[in-house]
Formats: sequence, C-alpha cells, structure tokens
Amino acid sequence: MPEYTAPLRDMRFLLNEVFEADKLWASMPRLAEAVDPETADAILEEAGKIAANVIAPLNRDGDEQSSQWNDGEVTAPDGFKEAYQTYSEGGWGGLGGSAEFGGMGMPKMLVGQVEEMIQGSCVSFGLAPMLTAGACLSVAAHASQELKEKYLPNMYSGQWAGAMDLTEPHAGTDLGIIRTKAEPNADGSFAVSGTKIFITWGEHDMAENIIHLVLAKLPDAPAGPKGISLFIVPKFLVNEDGSLGERNTLSCGSIEHKMGIKASATCVMNFDGAKGWLVGDENKGLNAMFTMMNYERVAVGIQGIGIAENSYQNAVLYANDRLQSRAPTGKQAPEKAADPIIVHPDVRRMLFTMRALTEGGRAFSTYASKWLDISKFSDNAEDKKLAEAMVALLTPVVKSFLTDTAHESTVAGQQVFGGHGFIREWGQEQHVRDIRITQIYEGTNGIQSLDLIGRKIAANGGAFFKLYIEEINQFIASQEGNAKMAEFITPLKAAVANLVDLTDWVMDKAQGNANEIGASSVEFLQVFGYTSFSYMFAMSSVVALEKEGSEPFYANKLATARFFTKRLLPRYISLSEAVKGGADCLYGMEADQF
Amino acid sequence: MPEYTAPLRDMRFLLNEVFEADKLWASMPRLAEAVDPETADAILEEAGKIAANVIAPLNRDGDEQSSQWNDGEVTAPDGFKEAYQTYSEGGWGGLGGSAEFGGMGMPKMLVGQVEEMIQGSCVSFGLAPMLTAGACLSVAAHASQELKEKYLPNMYSGQWAGAMDLTEPHAGTDLGIIRTKAEPNADGSFAVSGTKIFITWGEHDMAENIIHLVLAKLPDAPAGPKGISLFIVPKFLVNEDGSLGERNTLSCGSIEHKMGIKASATCVMNFDGAKGWLVGDENKGLNAMFTMMNYERVAVGIQGIGIAENSYQNAVLYANDRLQSRAPTGKQAPEKAADPIIVHPDVRRMLFTMRALTEGGRAFSTYASKWLDISKFSDNAEDKKLAEAMVALLTPVVKSFLTDTAHESTVAGQQVFGGHGFIREWGQEQHVRDIRITQIYEGTNGIQSLDLIGRKIAANGGAFFKLYIEEINQFIASQEGNAKMAEFITPLKAAVANLVDLTDWVMDKAQGNANEIGASSVEFLQVFGYTSFSYMFAMSSVVALEKEGSEPFYANKLATARFFTKRLLPRYISLSEAVKGGADCLYGMEADQF
Repeated sequence: MPEYTAPLRDMRFLLNEVFEADKLWASMPRLAEAVDPETADAILEEAGKIAANVIAPLNRDGDEQSSQWNDGEVTAPDGFKEAYQTYSEGGWGGLGGSAEFGGMGMPKMLVGQVEEMIQGSCVSFGLAPMLTAGACLSVAAHASQELKEKYLPNMYSGQWAGAMDLTEPHAGTDLGIIRTKAEPNADGSFAVSGTKIFITWGEHDMAENIIHLVLAKLPDAPAGPKGISLFIVPKFLVNEDGSLGERNTLSCGSIEHKMGIKASATCVMNFDGAKGWLVGDENKGLNAMFTMMNYERVAVGIQGIGIAENSYQNAVLYANDRLQSRAPTGKQAPEKAADPIIVHPDVRRMLFTMRALTEGGRAFSTYASKWLDISKFSDNAEDKKLAEAMVALLTPVVKSFLTDTAHESTVAGQQVFGGHGFIREWGQEQHVRDIRITQIYEGTNGIQSLDLIGRKIAANGGAFFKLYIEEINQFIASQEGNAKMAEFITPLKAAVANLVDLTDWVMDKAQGNANEIGASSVEFLQVFGYTSFSYMFAMSSVVALEKEGSEPFYANKLATARFFTKRLLPRYISLSEAVKGGADCLYGMEADQF
Repeated sequence: MPEYTAPLRDMRFLLNEVFEADKLWASMPRLAEAVDPETADAILEEAGKIAANVIAPLNRDGDEQSSQWNDGEVTAPDGFKEAYQTYSEGGWGGLGGSAEFGGMGMPKMLVGQVEEMIQGSCVSFGLAPMLTAGACLSVAAHASQELKEKYLPNMYSGQWAGAMDLTEPHAGTDLGIIRTKAEPNADGSFAVSGTKIFITWGEHDMAENIIHLVLAKLPDAPAGPKGISLFIVPKFLVNEDGSLGERNTLSCGSIEHKMGIKASATCVMNFDGAKGWLVGDENKGLNAMFTMMNYERVAVGIQGIGIAENSYQNAVLYANDRLQSRAPTGKQAPEKAADPIIVHPDVRRMLFTMRALTEGGRAFSTYASKWLDISKFSDNAEDKKLAEAMVALLTPVVKSFLTDTAHESTVAGQQVFGGHGFIREWGQEQHVRDIRITQIYEGTNGIQSLDLIGRKIAANGGAFFKLYIEEINQFIASQEGNAKMAEFITPLKAAVANLVDLTDWVMDKAQGNANEIGASSVEFLQVFGYTSFSYMFAMSSVVALEKEGSEPFYANKLATARFFTKRLLPRYISLSEAVKGGADCLYGMEADQF
C-alpha cells in the first residue's frame, strides 16, 4: 500500500546548502525576526510528520469516497474534518500569514517546502488550506484594515476557510466577460448575484465559516477586464463582536464529478444578493488578485512536484520488490526466480526521469520562492525591483513546467508498475488523475505560456528576461575555472545561448505576425524550463562536488544531475526546432475543415 | 454530449488512393475471392453505422456503470449484451476469420479500419470481439482440425466469446515463470489448475460460452519460456454434437477496479482442474501465440488511434463552439462576446497535433496491415518472406508508438476543454483514462521497444531494418524529380539518415555494454516512429499534391503533413541525443539509493 515520506534531506539541501536561506533571511529584518535555521528545521520536521501521519492516510480513501453533496450541504470524506482540525491546531494555516493579524510571517522558501509535503501527501485535502492561504494573501494585501481585522485571524487559525470564486460557466480564461453583479447596499456593503463554477472547496463541513473572494462587476463598470471588482462574501455573516451571524444568501448548487482530486469538492456556487464587501479599489479586482496569483501559481507548481515525489517513492519501492526477468548483464539475484525490475535499464530510465524532474522542480520552485520573499520582505528598493521582475518572469514557468513535468513523472510512475499501475489498489493511477488538474487550473498551462512570452518578455522588450540571463551568465563565469563543473557548465552554456537566440527569433517573427507569440508559446516555455533546470542542477552540483565522498547523498545528487544533463536536457533542441516551425502551418486550414 | 463519426473519407483515402489496396488484393487469389473495392467500401460504410449508432452510445454510461461481479458471475453494463448481439448478427465477429470455418477471410487492411471504428467508439466493448478474434487466430493457426471445427464457427458467429489467459500475479512480462499447471487426463485432455489475473472479459454475460486460451506448464516441462504450452479451456464443455455440456471447473474470483476501460471486466480467473485441450505442440505455447500477437498488437495500436480520433472530434466541436478571448490578429466574431477558441494559435497547435498523430498512425497501421496481409495471403515465397520480416519489425512500433502518441493526443484533447475537460460530463477525461491501458497491455511499450531494437534489429544484424530502409530510400529516389515534394522529401531524407546512424551507434555501443540496448530502446523506438510517420505523410502527400484543388480534403491533407513536418518531426533530434546519452548515466546510483 502507498506510503509517503517527506523528502526532508533534499529540502534541507536546497534551503541550507544550495540557496543558503539563512544568510538571506538574516539580511531582511522582518524575516530575521520571524525565522532562523533552527526554527525552519523544526518546522520542516513537524510538517513531515503531519504529512505522513495525518494527511497521507486520507488520500486513497478520500478518492474512493469523494466529497458528497446533499441539498446544498457538502460533506468531506471521512477523516478530512479531523485532519483539518489537527492541521489548524498546529498553526499551519498561518505559516505564511501576516504577523500583524496572527500569522507566523514565514518566508515562501520555507512555506513552499511545507506545501510540497501537504499537497504531495493528499492534494485534495491540501487544496483547502491552499485556497484559504490564497484568499488571505489578497485580503492582507488589498482589503481595508477593518476587513483584515475581521477576517484574517480566524482564517489563519483555520477556524474559517477561504475560497476563490472567479470562473463562470461562459468565462474561464476570459474573465473580462463575467456576469456576476455587485449592487451597492445602503450600508456600504454590496449585493452580489451570479453563478460561479469550478469553485474548489466552495462549500464543506471542515470549518465553521467559508470566506469567498468573488469577482463581480459593479453597475456601469467598464466592459472587459478593467471593469471587475473583488468582494469578500462570507458564508455566514460576521457580527460586530466577531461571532457568526445569519447565513448569507449564497449556496452550493452542485458539485462536479471529476477525473481526479475527487475528495475535494468542486462547487457550483449561486450568489443571490449575497452580502459582500469590496476588497481594494473599484474595478481593480484583477489587480487585487495578482499578489495572490503569483503565490498560488508557485503553489500549484509545488503541488506537481509533491504528487510526483509521492509517485516516485511508490515506484522505487515496487521496482526493488517486483521480480521479473533477468538483468541484461546476467542474473543479479540468482537465488530468486527473477531479478528485481530495478536492474533493467528502462526501469532505471523511468525512475531517473522522475527523480530528475522532481529534483529540478523542487530546486526551481525554491529559487522562485526566494525571489517572492525578496520582493515581499526586502527593504532595499533595488533588490525589491529586481525580485519583482524575476517573480513576474519565473512564476508562469514554475506553474506550467513543474506540472507538465510532474504529469510526465506520474505517468512514468504508473508505467513502472505495468498492469498493476492501472488498477486502483496500488495508488499510482490516482496520481495521474490528480495531477492532470494542475496543468489546467489557476490559468491553463497554455495561458501561462502566453503570459511568459507575451506579457513577461515581449511586452517589456525582454527586460526581465535579460536580468535572468545575466544572472545565469554570471554563475557560468564564476565556474569557468572549475574543471569538475565543466560537464554541467558546457551544456548549460549551450542551452542558455539557444534560449537567447530563440527569444530573439520569436521577438523578430512576432513583428510580422501577431500569431507567432501564441504559436511558439508552449514549446518556448518548455525550452525556458529545461534551460532553467540545467541552471538548477549546475548550482546543486557545485555543492555536491565539494562534499562528494562525505555521504552518498551528494554522489546521488551528481548522478541525477548527470542523468538530467545527458538524457533530458537535450529536449530543448527539438522544442526550439518546433518553435521555428512557426505560425503559418497552424493556419493552413479553415476552422470548419478540422 | 460526445458523439462519434467514423472517419470514412480518410480510411478510403488510405485504402484506395495511397496504398491501392485493390491492386494488392487482386494479386492474391485468396483475397481476390474474398474482397473487392465495392465490398470493402460497403463494409466500411456499415461498420461506420454500427460504430456510431450502436456502440458509441455505450461508452459514457458503460464507464459510469462498470461491469459488476457477483458471486462469480459478471454482468456487463446495460446495453452491452444487446450491442454484442447486434454486432454478432451483423457477422462482424468473423470478418477476419478463416473462410474454411465460417469466417469472411477479409484482409487486415480492411479489418483494421473496422477495428478502429469499433474500438474508437467504445474500447471497453471493443475488447470483447478483439480478444475473441485473437483467440480465433491462435486456434486457426495452431489447433487440430477437430478443435478448429468444434470452436471456430461459434466463435466467428459471436455465439461464443474468447479470452486470452496469460498473466499471473507474479508473472506478467516474464511469462517464463508462470505456475499454472496442466496434467494429462486419460482421455487426452488436460486438467488445468492455477490463477490468472488481468483477464480481459474473462467472464461476462454477453455470450453463452467463453473459450479461454490458457498458458500452462506440463509436468516436467523445461523451466522458462520453452516449457510453456497453450490450452483451449472452455467455460462450458462442448458435447460431441456441439451443444453445451457441463460447466467447466473455472471461475472468476473477482474483477479489478481500474483507472479506465471500466465497462470491461478485468478478471481474476481460477482454474481448478479445468478440462483443457492442447493447442499446437507441447512446450510451444509461446510460439502458438506469436501469430495472434502480431495481429493483436497492431489492433492495440489501432485502439490508440480510434480513441484519439474520438477525442479529436470532440475537441474540434468544442473549439468551434466555445467563446473565449479574442484572436491575436483582431476580433474574428465581432458580433459575439468573444471569439471561438479555434482562432487561438495554441488551440490550433493542439488540434493539429492530434490530427497529425492520428492520421500518421492510421496510415502506419494500414501500412503494417498490408504486410500482415501479404505474409498471410501471398503465394509468392519471396514476397511472403519479405512481408514476415516487415511484420516482425513494424509490429512493436505500431503497438507502442501509436499508443504513446494517442496518449499525447487525448491529453491534448482534454486540455482544449480547459476545466471542462477535467469533469466527466464532456467525456474527454474518459479517453485519457481509457487510453492509458493501451500503453501497458499486450506487452508494455517498454517491452515493445526492447523487442524492436533487441530481437528485431540487433538479433539479426539489422537484416529486417535494412529492408525497410531500402524501401524508404527507393521511395525517396522515386520523388527526386518532383519539386513539389521537396518540402516532404528533404526532411524525410534527413530523418532516415539519422535513423540509420543512430541504429549503427546503438549496435556499436551494445558490443561493449549489454545495458545499452535497453537504455536506448524507448527513445529509439520513438525516433523510428517519427521517421516512419514522415514516410507515411510523404506517401500521402504525393497523392494529395496530384489531386490538390479537386476537393478541400487534399489541401487539408497537405496542411496536416506540413504541420507534422515542421512541428512534430523535429522531435527525433532530441530523442536521438537522449539515446546517445547512453547507459552509464542509468547506473550511477545503487538500487537502494533511489
């Protein structure tokens, strides 16, 4: 049966050895106050326990049972409510929350590791705290002091949960055309009416109140994305004294039957003049979501590596246990009827692929989280500006590349099991079903790709992109004298040169054809992703080479980096060729001829 | 709601225009007698109707309902029994069957097209006739005249169904270690005892009898694959007069809960001294399966394109219907709130990818079927020998590459729908769940890859491979003067040269390291696959260029071929680089360090 062990050693390696989080944290007063390496270490340790002991056991049964809808009430699967309570009582809900309102103010570099464990052990469960944390971020960044005081402490404590209500039946990617309305009430509140769909944990029985953040249009708001406002709409109204008042006029009309994340409720939410309060400025609702979005999108990328890690762990156990055929080089376990399948090169290829993609993803999301932390906590205006640029640039890559590669990993993790991977018993097929949503929600991976090359690169003439390339080139330069690093630096250098060329190519082509950006976007993001992973493995290898010999961990790091460099990194070549295939071949046929 | 339309125009294009099946059939007496272009056309037409009207409607509800097990009895979902009857009464069960025993003796080139429609409209249903046809093939090729007469007519008529019983709990890929025993009875029959798992439609209520073909070991049989025999073990014994006698001592212990193909029953079968009869020679059971296996493996590849075609059709409908955002080049449907998403380059990229992979796969499986037909029906010894070589070489590629690419297609078909692709209502997620098994059963795709490069290339010094390359080179030479074809021939030429080089590279490396074959196998097969698709698109394009302008169909063919050539074919470059990454990087870590 599937088990889950938090990959603490690997997380500590990234935090303490590769990215030297302690120095970074010490350099920013607000973080220096909140966290030190010992605290961080204790947090990781405890999170690992709760993930393995409390949350992971929910995963299989929750999938079998699913959330249940009955006349507007939603019941989470058995054990979810209790786990949510344990999680909340441990203070985990406020880990990244604002200290002013009862949060712990921890950096995303650390919060991200905790997220990986929670999401990786049961993503259906993890979505509840994740959405709550996202809602809190928007409130903390944009709501009035009054709203913050009223909602944040109880959301951080887990007493209340949060939900994000964006999508409507006819409006997903294109939020500009939403129809939900908010009419001003005499008391300064608004009457919110409309239907939202795909609302994760929009209704459930795990917390006593659910705080919805709802996108809606004010009367006479301008058309399109510039006419959208954000409202806080609680399930139960909150009295002056903070106690719960009457039930607000919103309800869950039904829940979806889905491919995966079945234990989580995906709700149709009906708002019928429900009382809401404006968050941030009128018509600036999408802006008020941006802060939240970068964090959430990084969190979705982290979901990917969490699930992929879980699938990897099971696949390794199975590959060491399952006996089938003999190694090409001769019997390895002559006393048994066959060798464990881990002796076979193709099984190793699959395991190494999973391992490399997960380790690369973990490093890359930690690296992106570093920039999120600097942009939030630094008092140095220049650092902050650089960090904001890096966050803007890297976020779509983290969201998209880490979930695409995680999908590949879980499919490989299923394949290792052969026919046993297809039946539910072993748990591997659930990971494949669960992971698929991460490539779709929080902005599909196609939309992320457009965001990267369109808004984050083309729109500013490549300014952010140049900063990133500069940093990588500095790193490369710093390693020029290090002969042992040549096996990683030479391929990295080639990959970076290719990425720069490719970007120029697309920017140039886009001058003549508005379709070129969209035609190249997905493969371009993949090229960006593999190149970035190459940078991550190179940085990790500097440390691993220094410490090689001290423990097998470092030799294993190098083995994985070598596998990545030789067998996965070359993918950027074909992807770049595909980009250069251009847009014209996408328009050789009329829409009605498909 | 999902619908299915048989892609008849495309099938006719391949049969009549690209591969000129009429000439081929006319050249072989047994086929000339069985089929002519008019008959073939009528068969396609009727198959399209039964697929769309009778079988496709089973797909969604069957998935929701699943097959049910109750105390050894298995009930297929509502409507399956009736559809099976309609299918059988139409004579479809005997389409490819031996004419001597009541079959129609049709060529696989035609049978494969019918299979695509049946499998593409509901693969869970399609597995029942597919497994029956497979069992019939083994019986027809290897059983005694008596057994053939006793079983084949009722299996072709659909009155009885067939099942293949190979896998055991501890023996999947490695059939050499099976434990099921067959002890001789005094009457010349055998008492078969053991447990088989993953037996597709091993038990059900659609036919009055189920004929199991069971692999088992005779007493004192040699160890390993050379000690396996094949037995025919009916659910109900058959009396001398052909009527059904007593129930045999075999039973279905349970059925699996699976990721997909839920409507089909995947059975644990317990044999408790069940009466069986030897098929073919003692200890030659695996040989007796080979004939069947080439057909079945091609059929699994065809399942892939059938399901992918279904997903594609739904995705096209949705992409033309769903309004979201505006085209990069400006409003296309100014009267609407947004443009249909088919205007967006990335949506077109996904649709074209599906289209190209499905068309390439359909051409390639038809091409492989042509060789199957020559190997079976030709009276010319030289042609037969060539055909057998081509069948051996191409079969693992058809099975594996068509299901891998079909998986990519269905994932893309789901992605086109965004969040709506993840919920069950639209049917797209079912295709992703269903397709996954095709990459696993009938020999995992990893095993197919080993078969290709190990047994079909390395083991005979590349003799079969050279024949194939020769044929492609002849085709290339025949087009040298055709300027219009240069856009397809130049890339094909480069791909073929690369494939030849790569094969040499692997053969050379394998001399020094037994792990190199397995280390390169999966990516090597993919390179082989893309190169073969390039050949298929080039052959189709010769026809399409000649007829361009006569109907949009030909221009669309060319558009798809161009998309493939520019955006998908380049994948072989990186895959080849990965192969050249070699085996060593797979063994840089001990098994217990993963």
